[in-house]
Formats: sequence, structure tokens, C-alpha cells
Amino acid sequence: MLKQNNHSNRRIVLASRPKGAPVPDNLRLETADLPHPDDRQVLLRTVYLSLDPYMRGRMSDAESYSAPVAIGEVMGAGTVSRVVESKHPDYKTGDWVLNYGGWQDYSLADGKALKKLDDDLLAHPSWALGVLGMPAFTAYMGLMDIGQPKTGETLVVAAATGAVGSVVGQVAKLKGCHTVGIAGGQDKCRYAEEVLGFDTCIDRRADDFAQRLAKACPDGIDIYYENVGGAVFDAVMPLLNTSARVPLCGLIAQYNMQALPEGPDRLSLLMGLLLRKRIRIQGFIIAQDYAHHYDEFIQVMAPWVKQGKIQMREDIVDGLENAQQAFIGLLQGKNFGKLVVRVGNDSL
Amino acid sequence: MLKQNNHSNRRIVLASRPKGAPVPDNLRLETADLPHPDDRQVLLRTVYLSLDPYMRGRMSDAESYSAPVAIGEVMGAGTVSRVVESKHPDYKTGDWVLNYGGWQDYSLADGKALKKLDDDLLAHPSWALGVLGMPAFTAYMGLMDIGQPKTGETLVVAAATGAVGSVVGQVAKLKGCHTVGIAGGQDKCRYAEEVLGFDTCIDRRADDFAQRLAKACPDGIDIYYENVGGAVFDAVMPLLNTSARVPLCGLIAQYNMQALPEGPDRLSLLMGLLLRKRIRIQGFIIAQDYAHHYDEFIQVMAPWVKQGKIQMREDIVDGLENAQQAFIGLLQGKNFGKLVVRVGNDSL
Repeated sequence: MLKQNNHSNRRIVLASRPKGAPVPDNLRLETADLPHPDDRQVLLRTVYLSLDPYMRGRMSDAESYSAPVAIGEVMGAGTVSRVVESKHPDYKTGDWVLNYGGWQDYSLADGKALKKLDDDLLAHPSWALGVLGMPAFTAYMGLMDIGQPKTGETLVVAAATGAVGSVVGQVAKLKGCHTVGIAGGQDKCRYAEEVLGFDTCIDRRADDFAQRLAKACPDGIDIYYENVGGAVFDAVMPLLNTSARVPLCGLIAQYNMQALPEGPDRLSLLMGLLLRKRIRIQGFIIAQDYAHHYDEFIQVMAPWVKQGKIQMREDIVDGLENAQQAFIGLLQGKNFGKLVVRVGNDSL
Repeated sequence: MLKQNNHSNRRIVLASRPKGAPVPDNLRLETADLPHPDDRQVLLRTVYLSLDPYMRGRMSDAESYSAPVAIGEVMGAGTVSRVVESKHPDYKTGDWVLNYGGWQDYSLADGKALKKLDDDLLAHPSWALGVLGMPAFTAYMGLMDIGQPKTGETLVVAAATGAVGSVVGQVAKLKGCHTVGIAGGQDKCRYAEEVLGFDTCIDRRADDFAQRLAKACPDGIDIYYENVGGAVFDAVMPLLNTSARVPLCGLIAQYNMQALPEGPDRLSLLMGLLLRKRIRIQGFIIAQDYAHHYDEFIQVMAPWVKQGKIQMREDIVDGLENAQQAFIGLLQGKNFGKLVVRVGNDSL
């Protein structure tokens, strides 16, 4: 049974900055008073909380694309919530909304930070955090705007059963690409091929991973959608074709890195490769680079989801108190599908 | 006096592949019979020969964007030539043409490999190899298509008095950028500022080069036009702004590298930077990526050159027999302006 109640607010704050991989002590569950909405604010009860790899960056105080979470501050997160009290004319008790409520039972928001869920989503509110939300939007824009898939090209993406990778592979397939996924373990690989429709999925844990990848890409790689880095990128580099495109939205394999690896220094190797092969690599952050394309994304993706052309497996963990461990597992690839914490009940 | 004559053909062939920096023995001047044109061919006498850094790549047999020159084969090069004998209906004796004639006194061509010089160029035929040719085209397309300069942005380019860098800086200035050049030595820096109009030019040989570059870019770097690599890129990296663009057309500092530098391995550092700062790096080769934009380039550049808005200093070396040493000097930055060899006289 979910522990949320209506007279206090449990929240998970950043207790200390991780050194390398986060450990449970870096996060602390604490209980605070229920907040009260001011004029033009609403009080929201979190139902679903999205856990995503980018949150690792915000736990560090190294320079990054968004401000770090302060020590003692509630961890940020996209959430699907219900309005429990409204002092805003546009929202009423019971409304389902998408907000950036953070790792907690209750949050306050003004109208600007809120978005009512479309009717389509009411049957599956958690999809607003996945297949019709930020991860799928990230997958779609990076692939379409930077990747520019063409019929017959070969696309490779890692974390192929994850929230981003699964959509990258399915959209690329719809665009006529030969799609090669990479995932951790046989179960995920089978799912990627049988359910998500990847032409092949390679187990990144295999001893001969690089050889298998090369064999799965007999015509080289035209689009490598980069969300992991590390050993996967090492295996991808020699396979990149002339005029390849590399949309870069994440580097989960290096988020916990505390020092650069030993040499030789391959920076010049990479630059030389980009020149000789005329390759484009481009980093992007969905909210900053593509927010104005959101409606376009939904208009394309919602019908695909409705028609079953795009699927996203969800890995739902019950209880805010289990969020820390779930997040630590996410960085280790333990989740199988889009990781969501069910913080509260659907019903009011 | 230029040694070209009309009964034999001097030519410079690749004698051996360089190990590291090219040495004179890697190239050999030899004399062959004058070639004779077949039907629909023309015999051309080289007047100007273009020497460019990309030729270093073709001396190696490592994988590159174009096939290597074979041992014993004439070194390739863009040339401005005059027709001395024509069996092609579209060309007559005396015509000035742009061709890829190579490092030799005479060459044969069919109509497809030739381009008559526009009337505008007849007063300055060598400009077809520089300010109205491949180097300026490289500068313009990389800057405009990938760099996408906007008023008020900061652009940095190295080899600022060279064939590519000088045009990058001047076009960026016309587009309203704050332009920072990098060059080797005080004379070149003064020229870059006083004649080419760079806002600042930094001597790459200065002990405190990185500090000077940072000081010259108080608002960071929005566009880094990459044509050198090495220590310049190292100094540029920490200054790159969010959403910076890095057109990549050359890496002269690493062409002679025989092994990767010692560690740490900064590949993950670069990838992390591209992600956090949402940077675009894109390699390109002018002939392969932008040939279809040539007319557009000339329509913009020719008036600028005529009006004196874009200048390119030429460094003209007399005599084919001096091409080897001039090319070795080019890779060391000894040239001052676009390096051209005057192989023959202008007059027929």
C-alpha cells in the first residue's frame, strides 16, 4: 500500500554529493509539513515520478547544463500529479497535470509550470513521463533534426529498451532504417528484437561485443544516437560511415567518472575521424534546444502510440521510499524500460 | 627566370611516404616527355600551382577522404593553366583554365576536368586558387553553413593570415562578429589586425597564449572555425559557449603525428563538453560536401573581392623546383598568405 497521506509531505533531498557512483546515503528521505498554496497556486499530489539518468548530473556541482541541486534541497523530477487544492482559476481539484514536482509527495505550482494532461493520456497518465513525454521527445527530435534518417541507412542506439533508445529505434525503423540496438543482457535484447522491432540487438556484456556490432552493421553506421558513451562509443567509432551523424543526448557510462582514463589521449583521434569522415556530432538538451517543437512532436507521436507503432515498456516501482534504490539501479542499467515511481494512488 | 620549356615536362612525384614531417627526399623532381593530347583533350601549361595543407594527407596511405598518391605518381594540385594545344571544340590555344593539373609543367585534361576562368579573373589568374577558389570557398561554406554567424557573436580562427583563416575572419566580420585570429608571430598578427580587420590577433607562440586567448574572448567563443587542432584547440575548448559551432576543415597540427599523445585520454572530456554545452562539431570537405554551392559562393564573394571587402595575401614562390621546400614550409607555418608556386610565365 502506498504510504502517501494528507497531513505531511515526504520528500527526498540531496544529502551529499556522490563521489563516483551514487550511494543511498547521498539521498535522504525526510518528512516536512504539507505546503499551502498562495493565491494563483495549486497544491499537487504526486502520482508518478520520472527517474532519468540526467539527474546524476544535477547531484554534482561540476559545471553542467543546468544548476546543481543544492545540499538539503529536494531532488528535481518531472511528475504527473493531481490537483488537491487550487487557488488558480484555470485548475480545479482532481485535474491531472504534468509538472516538475520533484521527489516528494506534494508540491506547489503556479500556472506557468503546469500542463494539463490531454484526454488521450488519462487512460495512461504515466505516459506523460515516457512515450508521450520528455524521453520520447528527446528521442524523436535528436533523431529527426540531427540524425536525419534516410531509407536504407543503418542506425545504432544503446540502452535500446530504455525510454529514449526504444523510441529512437522504432522511429528509425518507421523511417526505413536498418536498426541495431545495444542492451545489457539477453532478456532485453530479445525484447528489443521481438517487441520493439530492432533488426538486431547486441548484448553489450558479450566478450566479443565489438565484433558482434561490426557484424550487425555490414554497411557501417550512418546514425549513431549517442546516449551512453564509454565502451559502446569505442566500438562504434571505427564503424562510422562518411557523412555519419551523431546526435548526443547522454553519456551515462561516464557520469560517475572521477578522473579521466589513462592514455593514450584519443582526442586527436576523434577529431581526425570527424574530419576524414565528415561526421557531425551535436550535443543537445531537449528542453533548451527543442521546446518550441513540442506540439509537432505530439502530433506525430500520439497517433503512432495509439496505433501501436511506437511502444515503451514501463518499469514501475511502487513507493517514494524506493526511489533512491531505483535511481541507483537505473545508473547501473538494472531497470527494464522507462523507470517510473508510483508515489501515490490514482484516485483522489 | 622560370625554367619551363616546350619539349619536356618536369614533374614532382611522390618518392616515399613521410614518417612524421615530410622531408625533401619524400618528393622527387623528374623530367618526362611532353604529353600529347588525344581527341577531345587539351594540353595545358601550368602557370600557377596551389599548395595546400590537405596534400599532406594524400602523401600517406592511411585511410583518408581521398585516395593517396601512389609512389612514383605526380603529386596532385589545383592549377591555373593556359591551353597550348587543343583537340577539344570548347577550348582554344591561349585560354586560361582552372584544372587539377598537379605538380608539373604540363598536363592533359578533357573538358569535364576544366573550367575557363571568368573574365574577372584574367587580371589576377592566381586568385582562382585562392580568394575566388577552393580555400575561400572552404572558408565561406564552413562558416556560413555550419558556423552560422550571428551579429555580436565571437568567432575564433587560427592560421588567420592563411588562405582559409583570412577569409573566415573577414566574412565573419562582415556578418557582425567579434573576430579573434590566431597566427604565428608578430608580423602576421599585425597584418591580421591592420589589413584583414580582425578585432584581435593572438600569437600562438606566446608563452601565455591560452591566457591571451581567454582575455580576447571575454564573452566566450560562439564559433571556432577549426583548421589546425593541437594546442590551439586545447586552449579553445574551455572557452566554448553553450550552443557553439565548430566547423572542422583541417587539423594541420596533427597531420605529421605518428602516434597518439600520452594520456590521460580526453575523448570522454570532449564528448562531455559537447553534451553539456550542446555544441555542434562537423567535419567537411569542400569538394564533396558543397560543390553544388559553388555558384552561390562566387556570386557573393566576387563583388566583395572587387569592392576590397575581402582580401587575401598571396605568398608566391617562383619555380616548380622550389615547390617541395615551399610545401614543407607550409606545414611549418612559414608561408605568409596563400601559398602559390609560379610554375610558368603568364604569356604564351
